[in-house]
Amino acid sequence: MTAALSISLPVAPSGGEDRLLSPSELEAALRDIGARRYHNLHPFHRLLHDGKLNKDQVRAWALNRYYYQAMIPVKDAAVLARMPDAALRRVWRQRIVDHDGDHEGDGGIERWLKLAEGVGFDRAYVLSTRGILSATRFSVEAYVHFVAERSLLEAIASSLTEMFSPTIISERVAGMLKNYDFITKETLAYFDKRLTQAPRDADFALDYVTQHATTPALQRQAMDALTFKCNVLWTQLDALYFAYVAPGMIPPDAWRPGEGLVEGAA
Amino acid sequence: MTAALSISLPVAPSGGEDRLLSPSELEAALRDIGARRYHNLHPFHRLLHDGKLNKDQVRAWALNRYYYQAMIPVKDAAVLARMPDAALRRVWRQRIVDHDGDHEGDGGIERWLKLAEGVGFDRAYVLSTRGILSATRFSVEAYVHFVAERSLLEAIASSLTEMFSPTIISERVAGMLKNYDFITKETLAYFDKRLTQAPRDADFALDYVTQHATTPALQRQAMDALTFKCNVLWTQLDALYFAYVAPGMIPPDAWRPGEGLVEGAA
Repeated sequence: MTAALSISLPVAPSGGEDRLLSPSELEAALRDIGARRYHNLHPFHRLLHDGKLNKDQVRAWALNRYYYQAMIPVKDAAVLARMPDAALRRVWRQRIVDHDGDHEGDGGIERWLKLAEGVGFDRAYVLSTRGILSATRFSVEAYVHFVAERSLLEAIASSLTEMFSPTIISERVAGMLKNYDFITKETLAYFDKRLTQAPRDADFALDYVTQHATTPALQRQAMDALTFKCNVLWTQLDALYFAYVAPGMIPPDAWRPGEGLVEGAA
Repeated sequence: MTAALSISLPVAPSGGEDRLLSPSELEAALRDIGARRYHNLHPFHRLLHDGKLNKDQVRAWALNRYYYQAMIPVKDAAVLARMPDAALRRVWRQRIVDHDGDHEGDGGIERWLKLAEGVGFDRAYVLSTRGILSATRFSVEAYVHFVAERSLLEAIASSLTEMFSPTIISERVAGMLKNYDFITKETLAYFDKRLTQAPRDADFALDYVTQHATTPALQRQAMDALTFKCNVLWTQLDALYFAYVAPGMIPPDAWRPGEGLVEGAA
C-alpha cells in the first residue's frame, strides 16, 4: 500500500512560462536552478573549502555525508526498479557499480569511508550511522522516497545536480588540500573518480530529460525535481552549520567531538 | 516495490538492558525518553512560550507547523491501513476524525488554519505549503514513511509523544496568551481540544505497546520508535531556530517576513 502513498501535499506551481521550451532552453533553465540553489552557494561549503573549519567541523561533514553516499546506490536501485527498458537499465546500473565497486574495498562508498577514516574516525562508528544528524537522515531518505514515488522523469531529473558537481569538486579538493594539513590527496580519492563519472551520468540524464519532458507541465516537473534535489543538499549543509558552526546546537544523539574516533586521533 | 523498501541503514542498538521490562518499567523507560528529548526542551519552545519571539518568528512557527498538522491524518491513515483488526481500527480512526472534522470548517487542521490566519496569514498561502522549510517537509514525511514501513508496534509507539503533550500545551497556551498581544484564546482553540484528545490517544497507544512489546528486542524497537519521533519534532524546531532566530539564514524558497499575509497584516 505504501507504493501508492504520495505524501506531499500539492505544492503550488513555482510560476514560469506555460510554453514548451526548446531542449537548449530547458537545459538553460535547469542550469539556472543550479546557479541559484546548488549547495556550492551555501556558507558551509565556503567555510569548508576556504579552510575556515576546524578539524571537528570537517569530521562532522565527513561523517554526515557518508550517509548520503551510502544511500546513493539504494536510491539508484529504486530508480532502476522503475525502468521498464533494458537499454535504460544497462546505462543506469553503472551508477550502482561505481558506488558499490566490484569487490570488497572497491567503489565510491569505500572511498568515502577512507575519507572519514582519514580524518580520524573509527570505521565501525561511521558504518553504524548512529552519530549522524536526524536532519541528514531525513533529507537523504526524502531523496530515496522521491525517486520511488514520483514519475521516472522526475526521478531522473532529480539526479541532475551532477551537472554542477565538477565545479564544486574542483573547488573543494583544491581548497581542502591547500588549507588543511590533515587532508591528503589519498583521503580525497573519492572525488577524483567523480570528476569523470558525474559528467558522464549528467549528460545521459540531461539527454533523457530534454527528450522526455515533452509538455510544459512535464518540463515544470523536471525543474521542480531538480529544485527538490538542491533542497536535499542544502538542508544537509544547513543542519551541519546549525549543529557545528553557529549557533552550534548539537541535537540529542548526534556526534559530539571526541566520539567515534580511533585511538590516538587528535 | 516501495512497500518493501526499508531505507534506513541499520542503526546500532542504543544500548540498555537485555532483560524483559515489566509494563510499568517499560512505561517508565518511555517517559524517560520524553524527559530527555521531547521538544519542550528545545530553545525555540522556550523562546515561544516566554514571549521572546517577534511576530514574524511566531508566524514562521505557525506556518511550518501547519504542514505537520495537515499530514497527521495522512500518517494515521497509513497506520490504519496496516491494522488487520476491526476493533483496533475503530479506535484509531477517531484520530482521523479529530483532525479532519465532521464537516467543512471543523477539525484540528481547520483550527490550526485559524491559528495561522490569526497571526496574519492568507489561508491559501498556508494551504499551498510553498513557504515551509524543506527541513519541515522532510521531517514530517520521514514520520509518514516510518509508520508505513516499520512494524505496527513501532508505528503505534511513535505516536507516544502524546504522553508528553499536555505539559507542553499548557506551557505554550499560558505563555503565549500572556506574552503576545496578537494571540487570542480563539487563535489557540486547537490546543483546547488536544488537551483531552491527546491523553485519550496516548493511553490507548501505551496500553497497546506495553501489551505487544513482549520481548526485550520489541521493547527496544518501541523505545527507538519514540526516540525517532522525538527527533522528528526536534529537527523541526532546529530548522525554525536556524532560519528565523540564529543565525537567521533562511534557505531558498522558504517564507520570508512579509510574504503570504493578508492585506493590512502588520
